[in-house]
Amino acid sequence: MSEADSARPCATDFLIASKQCEIDGLAHFLRMGQLVAAISNLVHALQRERGASNVFLGSDGERFAHQLQALSADADGAMQGFFSALKQVGTRTSGVQGGARLFSRIAHAVHVLGDLSAMRARVRALKLAPEQAVHQYSELVRALLAVVFEAADSAMDPTISAMLVAMFNLMQGKETAGQERAVGAAGFARGEFDIEQARRMQHLIEAQERCFEIFTGFADPDSVALWQALLAGTDQAEVERFRRMACTGLLPSSLTAEQADRWFQVTTERIDAMKRVEDHLEQRLQSLCEEKLHEARERLARHQSLIEQLLDADDGQGESFMVFCATGSSADGQGETPERYDTEGVSPQLGRAIIEMVQTQGQRLQRMQDELNAAREALEERKVLERAKALLMKHRKLQEDEAHRLLRQMAMNQGKRLIEVARAVVAMADVLGN
Amino acid sequence: MSEADSARPCATDFLIASKQCEIDGLAHFLRMGQLVAAISNLVHALQRERGASNVFLGSDGERFAHQLQALSADADGAMQGFFSALKQVGTRTSGVQGGARLFSRIAHAVHVLGDLSAMRARVRALKLAPEQAVHQYSELVRALLAVVFEAADSAMDPTISAMLVAMFNLMQGKETAGQERAVGAAGFARGEFDIEQARRMQHLIEAQERCFEIFTGFADPDSVALWQALLAGTDQAEVERFRRMACTGLLPSSLTAEQADRWFQVTTERIDAMKRVEDHLEQRLQSLCEEKLHEARERLARHQSLIEQLLDADDGQGESFMVFCATGSSADGQGETPERYDTEGVSPQLGRAIIEMVQTQGQRLQRMQDELNAAREALEERKVLERAKALLMKHRKLQEDEAHRLLRQMAMNQGKRLIEVARAVVAMADVLGN
Repeated sequence: MSEADSARPCATDFLIASKQCEIDGLAHFLRMGQLVAAISNLVHALQRERGASNVFLGSDGERFAHQLQALSADADGAMQGFFSALKQVGTRTSGVQGGARLFSRIAHAVHVLGDLSAMRARVRALKLAPEQAVHQYSELVRALLAVVFEAADSAMDPTISAMLVAMFNLMQGKETAGQERAVGAAGFARGEFDIEQARRMQHLIEAQERCFEIFTGFADPDSVALWQALLAGTDQAEVERFRRMACTGLLPSSLTAEQADRWFQVTTERIDAMKRVEDHLEQRLQSLCEEKLHEARERLARHQSLIEQLLDADDGQGESFMVFCATGSSADGQGETPERYDTEGVSPQLGRAIIEMVQTQGQRLQRMQDELNAAREALEERKVLERAKALLMKHRKLQEDEAHRLLRQMAMNQGKRLIEVARAVVAMADVLGN
Repeated sequence: MSEADSARPCATDFLIASKQCEIDGLAHFLRMGQLVAAISNLVHALQRERGASNVFLGSDGERFAHQLQALSADADGAMQGFFSALKQVGTRTSGVQGGARLFSRIAHAVHVLGDLSAMRARVRALKLAPEQAVHQYSELVRALLAVVFEAADSAMDPTISAMLVAMFNLMQGKETAGQERAVGAAGFARGEFDIEQARRMQHLIEAQERCFEIFTGFADPDSVALWQALLAGTDQAEVERFRRMACTGLLPSSLTAEQADRWFQVTTERIDAMKRVEDHLEQRLQSLCEEKLHEARERLARHQSLIEQLLDADDGQGESFMVFCATGSSADGQGETPERYDTEGVSPQLGRAIIEMVQTQGQRLQRMQDELNAAREALEERKVLERAKALLMKHRKLQEDEAHRLLRQMAMNQGKRLIEVARAVVAMADVLGN
């Protein structure tokens, strides 16, 4: 790379661009982490507001009017936090992987959020049935969680990706737990669970378990330990007794209103524990992003400084020098073949330094790509499962839990895994031109 | 979304950001397409220079001195084209998916290219053995093809992705054909192929066939038709007769030098045909990118104009209006659930328009993501295969064709597909902490 080649691009320019891309990406994920934290708070507030609306409407406005007002104010506060974080994310496209899909999900969430005031007015005016209000809140939460999913799906760093997968599943599990609490509360208040309601409870419990399983699989040991410790602090046996009643429909005739309220209490304890783990996970995610960003900036600064030093020291002696070293980053694999490089009029140190920097960068990125696979597979499996259920719901006019049950039945009958059956259903849909 | 909420983000801002991301991405791929075209020309020129160097060195400088000089000049011209295209790609990070890996590969290619002059000097001074020169040219070509692979691997649009997968495989197949030509030429000149050389020929032929199979699977019908027409125009039977001799080692004792030269001729015809298909494929890729970019810009302009019209027409009458419509883009699947939206003080037309735009954007992006899978799988399989071979080469001290043969043997013994065995090898390596 002699100085006469002024039109010639410089390997180091692209090496620096590569590192700059990494840095931009990490800075984006730092902002995304803060958005996820804000979504966690907003979802928590909306879940509480949903629960209060449910009781308010179900009691024809007799109960929880005061609480509802307070919780709406809380949710508004959380919403401001969400808007703040969104402002930080901004609409810049630089460094944003999968930006099109992310911004599309954000647009949807913001739009649904815009309808909240009108919905609250209808609730206050007792113009909605409890189920209708619950459904709308749930759709709003779903739209917000979709943003978290997209963040997880677009992560390039495997540790960040794993944490976001854990976070999404924890949040999704918590939301399902919230729905379980609501359906359970309605049933215990009525004093009965018919067969459809019992099945719904079963489905909600199973869905949670799956989420927490994935959470445990991807979260850092600290967060998992906290999760287990907090769960141990709640009365799990009591929750399971209530669940048994709800799933079998076998309620003791002696069940009092106080005991029914107890269901709400114990499930709320579990859900609050989940929120604490979410908060912990977010802090770890934030530290992780800051750490990686700092490291990446340091690496870039070190390399830039090294390159400058070597360029200064290089007095262009012009003698070719044979340099033996391994390339490492071969075409599309990781083959390592010893290479001989003639450094053309450039000091051997500079030549070696450049080779090493390029090689190290390539290897590190390749390793990251490999490690991303587990997280991406978990996300992909969820997408396929949701897709298969949606297809069955549409074509066979089923509810979500019925569709899931059908898939499980097919899996058992065919001696296959649930995910395999789901893929087959999705594949058939493509063939049928859906 | 009333005007009083000045701090409140606007769904349409994020919708526009989403579309802008798409546009930035498409603009990037237009530039990448031009870079791929430049790489195609540079690789072709280097392959011809490699062939001439091989003969020049093999004849101790007696033959091809003149041709070598002319071909080096051609390659320099192609290199300028590559540098030009690189300038267009630039080092900006906006809109670049997988930028870190792409720029890292480019850095490597530029660096290896920097050693070319010194290598040429050693060739002219007859200071390299033919195999050494061929090997260095091959590594340079490999580094350039790695950039094309990375471009294919980072594509977000399925049609663009498919074309880049086709392009990469065609280019890789052509490079392997070039190596086949060189090994064959050496053997026919010697008058014999020992068992190792015969096996290498077999490997090179099989590797080509695999590449062209994937090319045929992913290229547009026009390009495939051109490929088949051009092949039909070459003497395929003659090529196969020569191949049979090389792979079996059974050369007729009457083989003359002219007949040996005929090998070079017929293989060059095939390779030139491949170049013509590459050129055709590039033009289609260019048209495709321009078309999509144009469409995306039009879509964005239409939506922006629609939004403005509706905002003007919206006189903030303040009455809530119930709007029934399907959401389409639910959390992380494609469930469609009828939604009721209360449009808060916003005209129903604007509300409906926004819902529809957000929905359509989300669905379209999801569909693209689904369609990307086939292309991504093809790329991923290649990476796994190359990785498995590299691991075997390193740990068992094998040549590439021996490693490939071992994998095939394992596949046959275990009654599994090649890719499954390759994944198992890679998985074991991870376990062994490699």
